[in-house]
Amino acid sequence: MNSKNLELCKGLIKSSYVDLATQATNQFNKLLEILLIQRRLPDEGWDDLSIETFLHQVALMDSNNFIENIGVGEREGRVYSGLVEKRHFSLSHGIGRSGDINEQQPKAAGSSLLQKLLKYLVSDAMRLSGLETTTFSSLLVLPLATGMTIALTLLTLSKKKPQARYVIFPRIDQKSCLKSICTANLIPVVVDGRLDGDSIKTDLEAIRLKITEIGADNILGILSTTSCFAPRVPDSVVELSQLCKEFQLCHVINNAYGLQCTKISHLINQACRLGRVDAFVQSTDKNFQVPVGGAIVASPNSDVIDQISKNYPGRASGSPQLDLVITLLSMGKKGWVNLLESRKQLLPYFIESLSKLALKHNQRVLITKDNKISVGLTLASAPLVDATVNSSSATKITMIGSQLYSRQCSGSRVVEINNQKKNISSIDFLNYGSHIDHYPFSYLTVACAIGIQKEEIDLFIERLDKLFLENNKKSTD
Amino acid sequence: MNSKNLELCKGLIKSSYVDLATQATNQFNKLLEILLIQRRLPDEGWDDLSIETFLHQVALMDSNNFIENIGVGEREGRVYSGLVEKRHFSLSHGIGRSGDINEQQPKAAGSSLLQKLLKYLVSDAMRLSGLETTTFSSLLVLPLATGMTIALTLLTLSKKKPQARYVIFPRIDQKSCLKSICTANLIPVVVDGRLDGDSIKTDLEAIRLKITEIGADNILGILSTTSCFAPRVPDSVVELSQLCKEFQLCHVINNAYGLQCTKISHLINQACRLGRVDAFVQSTDKNFQVPVGGAIVASPNSDVIDQISKNYPGRASGSPQLDLVITLLSMGKKGWVNLLESRKQLLPYFIESLSKLALKHNQRVLITKDNKISVGLTLASAPLVDATVNSSSATKITMIGSQLYSRQCSGSRVVEINNQKKNISSIDFLNYGSHIDHYPFSYLTVACAIGIQKEEIDLFIERLDKLFLENNKKSTD
Amino acid sequence: MNSKNLELCKGLIKSSYVDLATQATNQFNKLLEILLIQRRLPDEGWDDLSIETFLHQVALMDSNNFIENIGVGEREGRVYSGLVEKRHFSLSHGIGRSGDINEQQPKAAGSSLLQKLLKYLVSDAMRLSGLETTTFSSLLVLPLATGMTIALTLLTLSKKKPQARYVIFPRIDQKSCLKSICTANLIPVVVDGRLDGDSIKTDLEAIRLKITEIGADNILGILSTTSCFAPRVPDSVVELSQLCKEFQLCHVINNAYGLQCTKISHLINQACRLGRVDAFVQSTDKNFQVPVGGAIVASPNSDVIDQISKNYPGRASGSPQLDLVITLLSMGKKGWVNLLESRKQLLPYFIESLSKLALKHNQRVLITKDNKISVGLTLASAPLVDATVNSSSATKITMIGSQLYSRQCSGSRVVEINNQKKNISSIDFLNYGSHIDHYPFSYLTVACAIGIQKEEIDLFIERLDKLFLENNKKSTD
Amino acid sequence: MNSKNLELCKGLIKSSYVDLATQATNQFNKLLEILLIQRRLPDEGWDDLSIETFLHQVALMDSNNFIENIGVGEREGRVYSGLVEKRHFSLSHGIGRSGDINEQQPKAAGSSLLQKLLKYLVSDAMRLSGLETTTFSSLLVLPLATGMTIALTLLTLSKKKPQARYVIFPRIDQKSCLKSICTANLIPVVVDGRLDGDSIKTDLEAIRLKITEIGADNILGILSTTSCFAPRVPDSVVELSQLCKEFQLCHVINNAYGLQCTKISHLINQACRLGRVDAFVQSTDKNFQVPVGGAIVASPNSDVIDQISKNYPGRASGSPQLDLVITLLSMGKKGWVNLLESRKQLLPYFIESLSKLALKHNQRVLITKDNKISVGLTLASAPLVDATVNSSSATKITMIGSQLYSRQCSGSRVVEINNQKKNISSIDFLNYGSHIDHYPFSYLTVACAIGIQKEEIDLFIERLDKLFLENNKKSTD
Repeated sequence: MNSKNLELCKGLIKSSYVDLATQATNQFNKLLEILLIQRRLPDEGWDDLSIETFLHQVALMDSNNFIENIGVGEREGRVYSGLVEKRHFSLSHGIGRSGDINEQQPKAAGSSLLQKLLKYLVSDAMRLSGLETTTFSSLLVLPLATGMTIALTLLTLSKKKPQARYVIFPRIDQKSCLKSICTANLIPVVVDGRLDGDSIKTDLEAIRLKITEIGADNILGILSTTSCFAPRVPDSVVELSQLCKEFQLCHVINNAYGLQCTKISHLINQACRLGRVDAFVQSTDKNFQVPVGGAIVASPNSDVIDQISKNYPGRASGSPQLDLVITLLSMGKKGWVNLLESRKQLLPYFIESLSKLALKHNQRVLITKDNKISVGLTLASAPLVDATVNSSSATKITMIGSQLYSRQCSGSRVVEINNQKKNISSIDFLNYGSHIDHYPFSYLTVACAIGIQKEEIDLFIERLDKLFLENNKKSTD
Repeated sequence: MNSKNLELCKGLIKSSYVDLATQATNQFNKLLEILLIQRRLPDEGWDDLSIETFLHQVALMDSNNFIENIGVGEREGRVYSGLVEKRHFSLSHGIGRSGDINEQQPKAAGSSLLQKLLKYLVSDAMRLSGLETTTFSSLLVLPLATGMTIALTLLTLSKKKPQARYVIFPRIDQKSCLKSICTANLIPVVVDGRLDGDSIKTDLEAIRLKITEIGADNILGILSTTSCFAPRVPDSVVELSQLCKEFQLCHVINNAYGLQCTKISHLINQACRLGRVDAFVQSTDKNFQVPVGGAIVASPNSDVIDQISKNYPGRASGSPQLDLVITLLSMGKKGWVNLLESRKQLLPYFIESLSKLALKHNQRVLITKDNKISVGLTLASAPLVDATVNSSSATKITMIGSQLYSRQCSGSRVVEINNQKKNISSIDFLNYGSHIDHYPFSYLTVACAIGIQKEEIDLFIERLDKLFLENNKKSTD
Repeated sequence: MNSKNLELCKGLIKSSYVDLATQATNQFNKLLEILLIQRRLPDEGWDDLSIETFLHQVALMDSNNFIENIGVGEREGRVYSGLVEKRHFSLSHGIGRSGDINEQQPKAAGSSLLQKLLKYLVSDAMRLSGLETTTFSSLLVLPLATGMTIALTLLTLSKKKPQARYVIFPRIDQKSCLKSICTANLIPVVVDGRLDGDSIKTDLEAIRLKITEIGADNILGILSTTSCFAPRVPDSVVELSQLCKEFQLCHVINNAYGLQCTKISHLINQACRLGRVDAFVQSTDKNFQVPVGGAIVASPNSDVIDQISKNYPGRASGSPQLDLVITLLSMGKKGWVNLLESRKQLLPYFIESLSKLALKHNQRVLITKDNKISVGLTLASAPLVDATVNSSSATKITMIGSQLYSRQCSGSRVVEINNQKKNISSIDFLNYGSHIDHYPFSYLTVACAIGIQKEEIDLFIERLDKLFLENNKKSTD
Repeated sequence: MNSKNLELCKGLIKSSYVDLATQATNQFNKLLEILLIQRRLPDEGWDDLSIETFLHQVALMDSNNFIENIGVGEREGRVYSGLVEKRHFSLSHGIGRSGDINEQQPKAAGSSLLQKLLKYLVSDAMRLSGLETTTFSSLLVLPLATGMTIALTLLTLSKKKPQARYVIFPRIDQKSCLKSICTANLIPVVVDGRLDGDSIKTDLEAIRLKITEIGADNILGILSTTSCFAPRVPDSVVELSQLCKEFQLCHVINNAYGLQCTKISHLINQACRLGRVDAFVQSTDKNFQVPVGGAIVASPNSDVIDQISKNYPGRASGSPQLDLVITLLSMGKKGWVNLLESRKQLLPYFIESLSKLALKHNQRVLITKDNKISVGLTLASAPLVDATVNSSSATKITMIGSQLYSRQCSGSRVVEINNQKKNISSIDFLNYGSHIDHYPFSYLTVACAIGIQKEEIDLFIERLDKLFLENNKKSTD
């Protein structure tokens, strides 16, 4: 309530009560003022009442909510269903304008404000994840998931080097990254990793060879990956960025869920400092626990972001951004830092628990120190698999995955080395899923991702143990 | 957003956009200002966004929502469940203080404001229903339904005349009114109505006789009823109020759903002018389409309301009041007047439709002109009832009610005259449900209550017709 | 989704996905099945999605939500505002019927189900608080706060002993309990407590004298209190119940926030076993962290509850019950037990922290071992009070309360002994607020109530310390 | 509630009440059954309770909501904020899989079901708009607005004809369509329209010339537009489709808000029958009154849709689709048809009202019979413009637009013919905004878009009239 109306309340309720209420209202206004001035995560997360009050105030700034508004255009923010209106807090204009996805909308000052504010909040969260400010001079939050955001980034970069049709892709067996190259009508050149102990690492020599083989002029750039499932480890992005600098290639980093890991942030910092990085892309859902649908593209070079932003044709949904605004205000600095810390601390615990289990079942945990998010467990077939199932032993290994899933453990991945070929986007892969042609073991890989709880780890270990014992029993029966 | 924060937005989005948003925010503030100054129904109903924004602003005024609040008492407005908090818009202190249900709470300026404002809104709605301001110098909205509100009113009135144990009760066969007398530890004296054509009217002579028989000193007063199901018509409240004045008796009017009918309001006006009315009580759900749980007690004598208010021990739920605030803001003057008008206009249509149906099935509509809300239809047993049902013909008539209900027609009441006795609150009634010992016909009665739609009337007639035809068919098969 | 519809989904999505979804749906159904069979708090609290799904399923059982329903009565559960409908999960019929507040409504099977289920859940929660099943053969959750519930209980008990006009009231300075006697048109007989060390205890001798003085036939019974602010301690309810048995008096216990304290539960168990307890009443908001507006009346004698239930005239709001259903499902057994435990463990911490503060400011904590909820701190005027304030030193002490409140500490109570008289409900009290005529010190009292957090205690101590220092500074300046 | 649990309810509430509730629950299940079997818009729209109940049932099918689920992956549908979870009805997995945006997700059966169902509902709505089933053998609802959807479509089509770099673009001055060509790294070839009376029509001859000039092999295809602001009329899509067939060019139709106009649907039907249409794209917000962020791409050739679907890399937001599911269930067939009808009927009324106003101010309404959505009004400068404003008369005309907007009329567009050049996406346009180099008049154009109310038209005319009078007054003062 504004001060005039608060004053008017004194005609209805006791003056002294209104005075205290005014003080409280001022606290809320102060909260908002600090946000608008400092433009970073609030120290303490906001409660839901404050967030909703703020969003309603913002909604009043959009023309479709103007009390006396009448619309005679084709896009007037009309919302048919009350349920839909409510779930968008009456914000219906989406983001951007035909000229630029980053542009403000005259009819939607409120939506534009949120969009702008979000960039600051995200910047702050990224800084807290260990990224240096020079690493991301500019960023854009898009209502596109990682794959499509990478495609749009490549499309944009391609404008400056239209004749270059190839993109070097250090192999990672995740379809949408590969496909994002194809979507942009570019041609992926997959370069297999190399084995170092249990770890799968970037084969820098092979990449250098490939560049000279194809010719740098014909290559748009490299699409590298930081966050990945063990035993693959993050790409050597520093060295790759130096290669890119040397050969004047673009460098896009798929940092899908890398914001949750300070070590990856440091790698990216270094890559930007020592070599060339055009853009790095991260998922909003995988890092900030919002529903799927958004990504952040950032760059040490603000021109790149500007070009992407201008290259986006027309408006877009504002829904993923709204999720992120709410979530970041709700987390606050404290909440975000706690989440980062807690994930970091749970990883050794997860590895230790898994190691004990491995010992019990004559397996071992793969040693992949450079992967700070996930970890693998060997699956030497017998006696873990259910021998009563009527299928080849290989297939039996894969069944562990679905057995776990039907026991309500989602997210673990079972990779079996069966030496089969698979064609993805017109490219043949051997042992697709294992990131390399010949990995020595079948294994199961799990992530210690942001938001995981200690109880979940314990329950997972318990269920996996039980499953192994059951399979074993069936096998020996 | 306050003007300072709006100004700060200019650091984030274009100044001219903020200016327009400011203008829009001012529109909302103006809306609220008008409400706080005029304290009557807004001309146009508010949209949900405005209502929620208002409620959130109000919630910020309650101490449990103060951002820095800590509580070291036993009642600090803590709410465990987010679902519960949300459904109360973070308002948790209820209403009233130990001393007075109408008193403001120092810890809950927001809740107190709503409570106070509600009284004005309700006053305005009551005026628009035809009640004169002198008819209700004061009113109280209680989180009690009609029955309990009447009990509390009688308890309070009883304090001034503690030796008087009797309450004259012109018979209406609705249990909770009768019981409200007993709850107050008073003794109901039921006086049967009299038949005038099809109508059941107040038997004023019998009441006068009863008063002299018992002795006015022993009688607390009369509890009369305005809104009732045809063929009973509203009590002659004017004459009853004159009787009360003559004998110095209290007069409480049960006006449960009478606010929807201007004619009843006029009767009450006259009763207050010409005789004695201590209080009249109306349901919030039956008049304003909110969930069950509230009532309004009003009086031409503000002392009475004051005593009731002071007689209520401790706090009470603020939930029914919140429903009413939201509803009245949402209706606005226009919505409320339209509802009143539309109901009025549908009654003749309902009667006409029912008459056509009656003709077709050899029945007739009861003529009860003084009842402007409901209407009866005779149910001469055969051929309407289902003869195949194995029960007495009387019971078969009652079955029509449940047949209708299981055909998704709720609210119609079937009254069969079977000359059976029923004991309610230790009193024997003959033909309970018919409001009089010997009504000449069994009948079905339906209401044209506020909120009814023309489509509902048509569908009801259609389903009733179909039911009669089916029963008829079974009977003649 | 029912199994038929899940099967139909296989026409749209993969059969194996539907199978797993069916398994998950069954988990939810199983949850509900367990609830309906076991009728006690779920071991683990339900998440909001499960609660909402359950409530929507329940809402579909009420006639106003029947898809083809048309209403032709005066109370058809119509809800005007979507906001209101939503906040009640489309439940609009309230609870009870004219005959009995505990009766099921034919039009509202869903609401009736919730009401019935709630009784079981509350029973379970009460058992977990330490009450024995024989202590509460029956209970009723009413949409009335404690004061009005006590009034209704006394009104009901009064029916069996109509000539008895007096209620013995061991003094507690809380207006609404006292008033609840008056509301029932009964006369309170206040008996002062006695001092035992710092504690104010029940003066059993004085009560016995008072009973013989007035005559047991003229006395309806005793209204005792268990939960109260230190230095008053719980009444000697065991001995009082024995007195009631001896003199055939009713005994109603105001157990407002006693459910949070096992020790009080044990007292009540014993009182029921060894003497006479007709009913004990507890607040829903103070024990279960819901908004104000409900109370539970329970009795070792189910007839009493039955009579109260039948004595309530008409329907009532179902809103406070809905809050409680949601909250108890959300807490589960684990949540509720944790809350009880955590409160218990924080009390010694609170006392210790307060003692340290006391020492620093030359005060002391009052020793009131029998009060397991709150604790007092002496306030020897100087140097704690702000000497610059222009008022008597007594008033200055009271100012500490408002100083704390304006520093966002709610709930602490400052009691100053100024030997002034106050008239409450026509009775003169000396030093009202202190529960006894002459308490030796002014003091501040705070509660370690359910839901309190360690952080709140720390912050309170910090702010209180700061306040004392500031006042001290002003005094010495 | 499933039948087992309903049966269990009989242990708690009366059997007969449960029976009726079961019947009601069955009604809901039947509703859902009909939806799953018929897979088209329900005849009557669903109420919000039914929609929410359905969505909660669907949410239970997604793994992140499985009651016992634990997640050890990097994307487990975790949602941090309760506000965010609630607004997505606990659906958090988005849509699609890395391989195909249209693929079902094993972890998200519920989300997948909605996605699949939506396609059927949208198909039905499109049929009701006049599109024949052969016109759209297949369709895809994407969480991308129109511009980006067209870009993705062009990118996909481009794969089959990689050497063709040009796209013929019959000029329409709406930036995002033009840009969508550039985003796909293709080169737009703008062909000016031709004037026919007041209408701007497709210049078929110029297009044919341009094709032969550039060479069909170098041209990917034509991007035509149906829905546009008068005085431009829909492109001659039938003739253009015949050209495309003749020259083996792709043909994409931008049908942004064309679904609201049966006549446009008929044109598209004919174009598909007589010539070549590869895809036509429509906005969800402009046709169905949902927030910005979705589009439907449809094709007579299901292969095209399949390729687009497979070309989308990775997952995407499910939020725009959720909005559409809710909205279409809420509208039902009846609601959607009424909206279409009502819009159609209001257009002549709007034109008539505007004509009267025109007459009064010495202007005229432009005659553009083929545009069935919007209409233009000439703006011969004086005396309509505010002569006191210190600017050229041309600029003064544009000011009418902002004057209207600040009078809360959004959506009208003012086009002034000032013969200035503007560079958009590296192309020079004369009089950008007017769709043609030399239109004879400046004008204002307004749309009679779906969802418009008669009251809005009246208010717009009133405000426009007032504005003209005010400007006139200022000019003559």
